[in-house]
Amino acid sequence: MSTSWTSFGGDLHLDLGERRAAGAGLRASLEDALREAVQDGRLTPGTRLPSSRALGEDLGIARNTVVEAYGQLTAEGWLSSRQGSGTTVARRSVPVRGGRTAPAGPRRRSVRHDLMSGRPDLSLFPRTAWLAATRRALATAPHEALGYGGPLGRIELREALTHYLARVRGVRTDPDRLLVCGGVQQGLGLLCAALRERGARSVAVEAYGLPPQHALIRAAGLSTVPLPLDERGARVDLLDARCGAALLTPAHQFPTGAPLAADRRAAAVRWAREQDRYVVEDDYDGEFRYDRQPLGAMQALDPERVVYAGTASKSLAPGLRLAWLALPDALVEPVARLKTMADTMSPVIEQLTLAELITSGTYDRHVRRCRLHYRRRRDRLVAALAEHAPHVRVTGIAAGLHAVLQLPPGSTPEAELLARAEAVGLALSGLTWHRAGPPGGDGGDGGDGGPPALVIGYAAPPEHAFPAALDALCELLRGA
Amino acid sequence: MSTSWTSFGGDLHLDLGERRAAGAGLRASLEDALREAVQDGRLTPGTRLPSSRALGEDLGIARNTVVEAYGQLTAEGWLSSRQGSGTTVARRSVPVRGGRTAPAGPRRRSVRHDLMSGRPDLSLFPRTAWLAATRRALATAPHEALGYGGPLGRIELREALTHYLARVRGVRTDPDRLLVCGGVQQGLGLLCAALRERGARSVAVEAYGLPPQHALIRAAGLSTVPLPLDERGARVDLLDARCGAALLTPAHQFPTGAPLAADRRAAAVRWAREQDRYVVEDDYDGEFRYDRQPLGAMQALDPERVVYAGTASKSLAPGLRLAWLALPDALVEPVARLKTMADTMSPVIEQLTLAELITSGTYDRHVRRCRLHYRRRRDRLVAALAEHAPHVRVTGIAAGLHAVLQLPPGSTPEAELLARAEAVGLALSGLTWHRAGPPGGDGGDGGDGGPPALVIGYAAPPEHAFPAALDALCELLRGA
Repeated sequence: MSTSWTSFGGDLHLDLGERRAAGAGLRASLEDALREAVQDGRLTPGTRLPSSRALGEDLGIARNTVVEAYGQLTAEGWLSSRQGSGTTVARRSVPVRGGRTAPAGPRRRSVRHDLMSGRPDLSLFPRTAWLAATRRALATAPHEALGYGGPLGRIELREALTHYLARVRGVRTDPDRLLVCGGVQQGLGLLCAALRERGARSVAVEAYGLPPQHALIRAAGLSTVPLPLDERGARVDLLDARCGAALLTPAHQFPTGAPLAADRRAAAVRWAREQDRYVVEDDYDGEFRYDRQPLGAMQALDPERVVYAGTASKSLAPGLRLAWLALPDALVEPVARLKTMADTMSPVIEQLTLAELITSGTYDRHVRRCRLHYRRRRDRLVAALAEHAPHVRVTGIAAGLHAVLQLPPGSTPEAELLARAEAVGLALSGLTWHRAGPPGGDGGDGGDGGPPALVIGYAAPPEHAFPAALDALCELLRGA
Repeated sequence: MSTSWTSFGGDLHLDLGERRAAGAGLRASLEDALREAVQDGRLTPGTRLPSSRALGEDLGIARNTVVEAYGQLTAEGWLSSRQGSGTTVARRSVPVRGGRTAPAGPRRRSVRHDLMSGRPDLSLFPRTAWLAATRRALATAPHEALGYGGPLGRIELREALTHYLARVRGVRTDPDRLLVCGGVQQGLGLLCAALRERGARSVAVEAYGLPPQHALIRAAGLSTVPLPLDERGARVDLLDARCGAALLTPAHQFPTGAPLAADRRAAAVRWAREQDRYVVEDDYDGEFRYDRQPLGAMQALDPERVVYAGTASKSLAPGLRLAWLALPDALVEPVARLKTMADTMSPVIEQLTLAELITSGTYDRHVRRCRLHYRRRRDRLVAALAEHAPHVRVTGIAAGLHAVLQLPPGSTPEAELLARAEAVGLALSGLTWHRAGPPGGDGGDGGDGGPPALVIGYAAPPEHAFPAALDALCELLRGA
């Protein structure tokens, strides 16, 4: 077969022969050939592929096989399906060009099943409601709202958030102490800079956490001091007074899932008061609790000692870059000053739109819908594992969008499991990757030589891709 | 008269007696009383004011006087006028609360006539077109576009900008070397951090410039070395080889307005090549040139030595926080890495929307419309000054959204002029404020003891407020 390419649904020749001869299935061969053509740059972004009927006829295979192959590659992000426009090659943030090394987003090259934690189901983003709220926001915003404003952000959003956070998470703040920032990433960076100005040299972090946050803290010139964890959350009794702050995920420890016990919350606040330090509460998935009433924010114990960090990344979309800090009085001026220096203020239209969503009640309804959706995902995960991988212990599933899968002693080591996962395009992380500080040096649970554990996010795949992702996961675990 | 306040158009008692007894006009007294009530917090944001008819009857004054007073306070930003909703107290970014010191946006307390440079006419923001483009963007964006992406930004926008900037400004770049950032403020900060990593310790800046940028450079740990200016732009022959980069505004020197002469552009690029340094071209108003063909970007002389910084702040709105850097190959990785650390990436919906605006041709049409509008403003300014303040020399008006007004020797000193301007709520800046580095230490033109010069932005006021602003300016200059 020749390999010639044309756009706009014209001829598209694909060479499946070699793969078939090697024993690969028809659909897998087609998927591989398409994927390769896009990765190599022969099919350029925007190119329109033939209809499934046309390609099926051309290759002499069933139309449905092409439909499934297109669907799989769309789920992976290589292709784009638009109503009325057929299937095109997706525009990706890492275009493949000659020998140039383009800085990449998260590596997508071999991702067929995305079970990385920290990602919501992007198909849930309420596009229509967002657009309607944008329309209302633009219809009523005064002209000055589009100009240079203060670093805290739009008053409309700060007022809406004050009430929403009080009602939903028990946060005690007011619009003058809320700062809108570009993701918790930016918020944490501003906080670290402010803490450093105050003389802080280190931040206590939970022994397992989010490596990009650890890197951020270090880039700000502070060292990270790991805090051991157990089933009741962080061992706050071991907080080092030399640390300028403690970064915690009290509602749902990331990634182990333990909620921080009540007595430990009180102890952390006591530590902060006695040492004149701060606690940073990263409430990354606080709206998603399934089995009982959500635990209120720790911030309410002492708004002058606890910084509350919230985000729209999980409830809406990471692409909005919308997050907020409820700050102690003493930190408002320095953080606001640093925000002004960083980028003056956050973009206003998103802020006005979110304020509209919140005040209209639409946001509440959306979050409820998401919670139901993700709870079903969790239930399907648990059921699938119970049936196909009963030797695996699933933890941290009372809340959030991810779970930790603990394998029994004697299982395949974590590194080998991750390699096998990557080989089949299954994206997830090992618990070890989440470790803060040098391996073996943190006194945490698990560690080198302990039984392997995997962290999986069950929110990321769109609905049609979730079953296949579950299958791949169970397949991996069965052989573990 | 009592002073009691009710909302929703009910009774509103205002005490004008004292001001009237002091000789103030009726309208000015009413404006002052309203302004004071809002500033003091007695009239809270969102409070609905009585109709002009009702208040006029209540106070025994002509309805039209109330209409004008409401109009003036709306132009100043204290009140908000919405069709069908009457007049309300505006929601501002600096709420007045008790004794709390809220970090402020630009101080608005006494601004009646906004002639500060750097601000576009916000009433020109194309809300309908923006909304329509957002709708199209959301209708076609793949789900993954809303997720975590690469630091450079959405490929749709980078492709659209590549073509647009080439066509309109002669910039030579490609999508892999464009980085979308949160305003030139953030872009400059990222650049400074990248330069510092490479060993830079100082940046050459034009002797007159934008003080917030100077502060930003210093906050990044670099010192600013002022570069003298003359009528042909920056004295690039005096560039110090120890500087890691030179920050220039070649199309329209800010604030003096001189375009950088061709031979000097070439010399700056030569300097950068010979010393292995960079030039940063801040093209802050490159689309607004009135009297002749625009000068193309300097970046085209050597894309590997010149960083091109552009923005949507003037052509669209500062509130979007949309800007971009066309980077030399060698700076792509470091700047992208620093962007990732700062806030992962810029918000995506704006990016997709702007890409739609550009590719649909709407952005071009909008910019042309703005150019025409601002040229008329400039013409009215020049005519008004020629008639009412012929002793003033207006410079820098061939392009952009601001002008420099040079007064003759023997005029009222700059500081006194600024004080008089502030007393009548006229916002503008003195040329001295724009000076980089210690006064007298930069070898630049003008300086202590020289004739005063004012920098005024003629874009900021909405159309209905522009005549009054011009009047106030002429009044100030007549007495100078």
